[in-house]
Amino acid sequence: MIETGRRSAGPIRLTGSSAVALRPATRARVTGGLWASRREINRDVCVPQGWDRLHEAGNYANLELAAGRGEGAYTGELPFLDSDVYKWLEAVAWTLDDPDLEASSAEKLLRRLAESTELLAVVQQPDGYLDSHFQVRFPGERFVQLPWGHELYCAGHLIQAAVALHRSTGDEALLGIARRVADLVVVAFGTEPGRVDGVCGHPEIETALVELYRETGEQAYLDRARYFVDRRGHGLLGSDRFGRHYWQDHEPVREATAVVGHAVRQLYLLAGVADVYVETGDQTLLDACARLWDEMVATQTYLTGGVGAHHRDEAFGDPYELPNERSYCETCAAIASIHLSWRMLMITGEAKYADLLERTLYNGFLAGLSLDGQRYIYANPLQVRDDHVASGDDGDYLRVPWFRCACCPPNVMRLLASLEHYVLLSSDDTVTLHQYMSGDYAAELGEGEVVLEVLTDYPWDGAVQVGVAATPDEVWTLALRVPAWGSGAELSVNGEPVLDPSVDGWWRVTRAWEAGDVAQLRLPLEPRLTAADPRVDAARGSLALERGPLVYCLEGVDHDGHRLDDLLLDADGPLSESVEDGELGRIVRVEVAGATRPRTHGSWWPYAPATGGALTGGPVTLSAVPYFTWGNRGSGGMRVWVPTA
Amino acid sequence: MIETGRRSAGPIRLTGSSAVALRPATRARVTGGLWASRREINRDVCVPQGWDRLHEAGNYANLELAAGRGEGAYTGELPFLDSDVYKWLEAVAWTLDDPDLEASSAEKLLRRLAESTELLAVVQQPDGYLDSHFQVRFPGERFVQLPWGHELYCAGHLIQAAVALHRSTGDEALLGIARRVADLVVVAFGTEPGRVDGVCGHPEIETALVELYRETGEQAYLDRARYFVDRRGHGLLGSDRFGRHYWQDHEPVREATAVVGHAVRQLYLLAGVADVYVETGDQTLLDACARLWDEMVATQTYLTGGVGAHHRDEAFGDPYELPNERSYCETCAAIASIHLSWRMLMITGEAKYADLLERTLYNGFLAGLSLDGQRYIYANPLQVRDDHVASGDDGDYLRVPWFRCACCPPNVMRLLASLEHYVLLSSDDTVTLHQYMSGDYAAELGEGEVVLEVLTDYPWDGAVQVGVAATPDEVWTLALRVPAWGSGAELSVNGEPVLDPSVDGWWRVTRAWEAGDVAQLRLPLEPRLTAADPRVDAARGSLALERGPLVYCLEGVDHDGHRLDDLLLDADGPLSESVEDGELGRIVRVEVAGATRPRTHGSWWPYAPATGGALTGGPVTLSAVPYFTWGNRGSGGMRVWVPTA
Repeated sequence: MIETGRRSAGPIRLTGSSAVALRPATRARVTGGLWASRREINRDVCVPQGWDRLHEAGNYANLELAAGRGEGAYTGELPFLDSDVYKWLEAVAWTLDDPDLEASSAEKLLRRLAESTELLAVVQQPDGYLDSHFQVRFPGERFVQLPWGHELYCAGHLIQAAVALHRSTGDEALLGIARRVADLVVVAFGTEPGRVDGVCGHPEIETALVELYRETGEQAYLDRARYFVDRRGHGLLGSDRFGRHYWQDHEPVREATAVVGHAVRQLYLLAGVADVYVETGDQTLLDACARLWDEMVATQTYLTGGVGAHHRDEAFGDPYELPNERSYCETCAAIASIHLSWRMLMITGEAKYADLLERTLYNGFLAGLSLDGQRYIYANPLQVRDDHVASGDDGDYLRVPWFRCACCPPNVMRLLASLEHYVLLSSDDTVTLHQYMSGDYAAELGEGEVVLEVLTDYPWDGAVQVGVAATPDEVWTLALRVPAWGSGAELSVNGEPVLDPSVDGWWRVTRAWEAGDVAQLRLPLEPRLTAADPRVDAARGSLALERGPLVYCLEGVDHDGHRLDDLLLDADGPLSESVEDGELGRIVRVEVAGATRPRTHGSWWPYAPATGGALTGGPVTLSAVPYFTWGNRGSGGMRVWVPTA
Repeated sequence: MIETGRRSAGPIRLTGSSAVALRPATRARVTGGLWASRREINRDVCVPQGWDRLHEAGNYANLELAAGRGEGAYTGELPFLDSDVYKWLEAVAWTLDDPDLEASSAEKLLRRLAESTELLAVVQQPDGYLDSHFQVRFPGERFVQLPWGHELYCAGHLIQAAVALHRSTGDEALLGIARRVADLVVVAFGTEPGRVDGVCGHPEIETALVELYRETGEQAYLDRARYFVDRRGHGLLGSDRFGRHYWQDHEPVREATAVVGHAVRQLYLLAGVADVYVETGDQTLLDACARLWDEMVATQTYLTGGVGAHHRDEAFGDPYELPNERSYCETCAAIASIHLSWRMLMITGEAKYADLLERTLYNGFLAGLSLDGQRYIYANPLQVRDDHVASGDDGDYLRVPWFRCACCPPNVMRLLASLEHYVLLSSDDTVTLHQYMSGDYAAELGEGEVVLEVLTDYPWDGAVQVGVAATPDEVWTLALRVPAWGSGAELSVNGEPVLDPSVDGWWRVTRAWEAGDVAQLRLPLEPRLTAADPRVDAARGSLALERGPLVYCLEGVDHDGHRLDDLLLDADGPLSESVEDGELGRIVRVEVAGATRPRTHGSWWPYAPATGGALTGGPVTLSAVPYFTWGNRGSGGMRVWVPTA
């Protein structure tokens, strides 16, 4: 079933008329480094465990009930449990495309895939309807609980899984099921009499339908995606306790000036809006995406790339409202942000989209998976108090094996399993390497193909070697991204320095490349101190440590005898770094001078007349680790923003 | 029915053996100043409107349904709608005790009271059970949904209303209904076989049962209150999505070291714990209350006295986790904090409890009611962004006429209506004036009675005149509180200065007081700048303005042409004040020098390398108003903590 070495299309396969500046790689393979290691964990731990966890959590039992062959009550109150299965199936699909997957593992996954597909075929009703929650708990009710029902959300994930599997293995069975679901959606919804004129409370179907259109050529799918984009924002969902903003139904997306409401909903929607733009050329949609992305990044994005400031409604806050202790930064929202930035990068070719994608990938996203691959985190705070008391479901800042609302784990799996597609893009005359991971990446160029071999220990080391393994006999441009923090970068080709070729975040070298040519990029990875826009109140008087694309944090476990609340950073102190290979794997640790803050306050009341400068106590060395590794050594305090002395 | 001039006992009437240092006033009447004005609004606007709002919201319709004479479906999903009615009835009871209530208004309230009592008598089942939610929606189910059912919570509020009415008018009818409910609770719960061994998800019954014991002398009510205190913390409620901490069921209160979970639940519980201590003398309970109050105030209380840092679960956060934009500070939690501090003040006589009571009353509580008395606010933030988008139910920082979950409005009403009882306390030899409101207050002293006439324009003016209107022929001590901010206060008796009589927050003057004696206290009300403990990250690099007991805030509406996000405070600048009588009523406005912060940041990314000191732009005058008046002039930005230049 698997053609060894065959590289399928990834999550996006454009059409001939797609309105983009850059197109995905034709083949891609990550071969080493941090991401290969994370993908190995995903392949060998996360994805195999997913099957067990989905069974333990009752997701499969619910489908069995819907198939009329299970027993007992429907598990859980959440209406979208099917989607966890679909996201896992999508992860399986991409994993099957991994040339490093062992044959025995592949066979096991294929068996589970076959079993799942067979089950879904039984569950699916004659007209295509498929949703275990409604079939079991509300039989006969269809598309009438649109605000919270998640039927189209689940359908979207099923479609994405089916498309992924079709691309990965050529499987037609799951695609057939998904198409029947999509065909039902096409005829059930619309403004015509007798149809449901409505949208789903949780966007997702939009981007899925566009991809299904791309996979099948069926125009009706694209039309229906556009319909869902157009109809949102007209109050069709009504209001509920979180208000209309929550599901972006307060105003049409073309009129929106700010990202609002539930972060994952907002960003899945915008990914769909971008997709509809790409296939229709409707400039008003692109304008909306660009405007909202800019607003989000300038005023509502954490240093980690995480988004979502509110726990209560998992939502964006006001501009510059970025509390560290209660940063929500749902792992799924980071994934959604990556989806959107990737699309905007393809559409525009602008480096800022790749910059945010990278930042989100290495920090806000990667922190969502424990180093051992066995535990996940739902909300990703930028600060945890020394005395934090974890409470509530889903861990509240604890890494746990699974969640009651388990949207994040299989979402992590499907992104890691398809990550090789997020590295290289190309146009007719340019091959654009926007992420740096060791691997082989191929792009169409004219009548031929360019194959690049990338070798790097990034993000630990700044040297990136890009070898041209194959090239057509043409002049073309190699574009390498220099991140916004990368001033001082150096580039050479075949040992010859290339002087200051940077334009808008890209270093471009245009020449008649030949096989064997080697470009050497050196990015400056010295640790640096970063300040926030002063309107970010939560970071006032504080600095963060960064190195390359990595945000760093202090953890209590590295500061024995001190409470993080009492540590101050010396903004003038020297920064040092050291490589270590220990409990956190191989990382670069960063140290900086600091001081303790003496406890001078003895009153029962913690507010007092303003006095002069803060006193500082004895010197102490602050020891920082990459943010994505936090919380892997038991509980304890953590913070990204450190007050200055 | 109302004996003009008769002053009933207030919310607490101690027994002869109550373990307290200070006992409530025997009579009390607020006659002028800010609080008389607020109480007038409560009497003439809030309480009368309450009847209409409770009918519009369906609370009464639900009771009619339970009485078997209504039609239609039960309104709302919330199980505790009856409690809104009970809290309103309690407010009516205290209002009927107001000598300034006009006869026609009293008659109207009495008619509504009679109508309500008659309705409740019909709803009540033969064995005493009374809960419209369960009688209509889950007939036959009793005390089986303890975590979320709120049956005992509702019962507690019914009991409090009935006790208040009994004290105010001598009414026996509602008390009879409440006693039958309490009698059922007494026999239904317990560790004996056949009983329900459990506690309510929302504490409230504990303090209510103690007060019913005080009112009736029935020991079983006290015993059952102690039982509920003892049995909480043993996991009887199980866990739910907010965890066991949410309802303080994770550990017994005697072992607790920190306030946790839902703030109102935690503080209602502690009020009940304090009450059980007072009537049983169980020192371990007092120790717990004192320890948890200290911890709460030192690490989890906002400058306004507000508590509760999390919106999601309306809960306390970690120590020093006090975000300004998302301060929850539920109005009900401020009320609950006042309940607890008042009890601790009676028990210990320590001034710090009166200090926090005052701070909470003037700020965290008073902000919960609009100046016109027609709108309420649920969560009381310390910062609202210029561009804040209100979303979700219950207003999200908007003052609205009523809430879907309307616990706060009638809670505000009952506290305002009984506020005169929160001014004076006494022991055998000391009369303690712990709050300063113009009015007449009487205390038992030996065989006689001391009557004080207080005249003051506090909190606008610092002069407090305390006249002795009546006194027995004994030597006794007048204790006047000097708040923690009040250094520099002056005191004279009959024109003679009293030199430095301060001990632990009280100024005590012991003498053979005679009728006609006048003590003059002068508290320094100069505006002052206040800083937070540096561990309060949210206030780092910022100062707050205070004047006397009032916290001040900046509002966007007073800073035309500027965004609050861009204003800086000059910590060395002079502070000035001016009296005004305008849209906000009569207030003292405070001004301080400040500067604008120029917008220098032009990048798409709001984080940048650390640079030197912050640039400041042109000078600007910052104009601050009392926090309790915020949000009465339309929407717009607000902030308490202002960054310094």
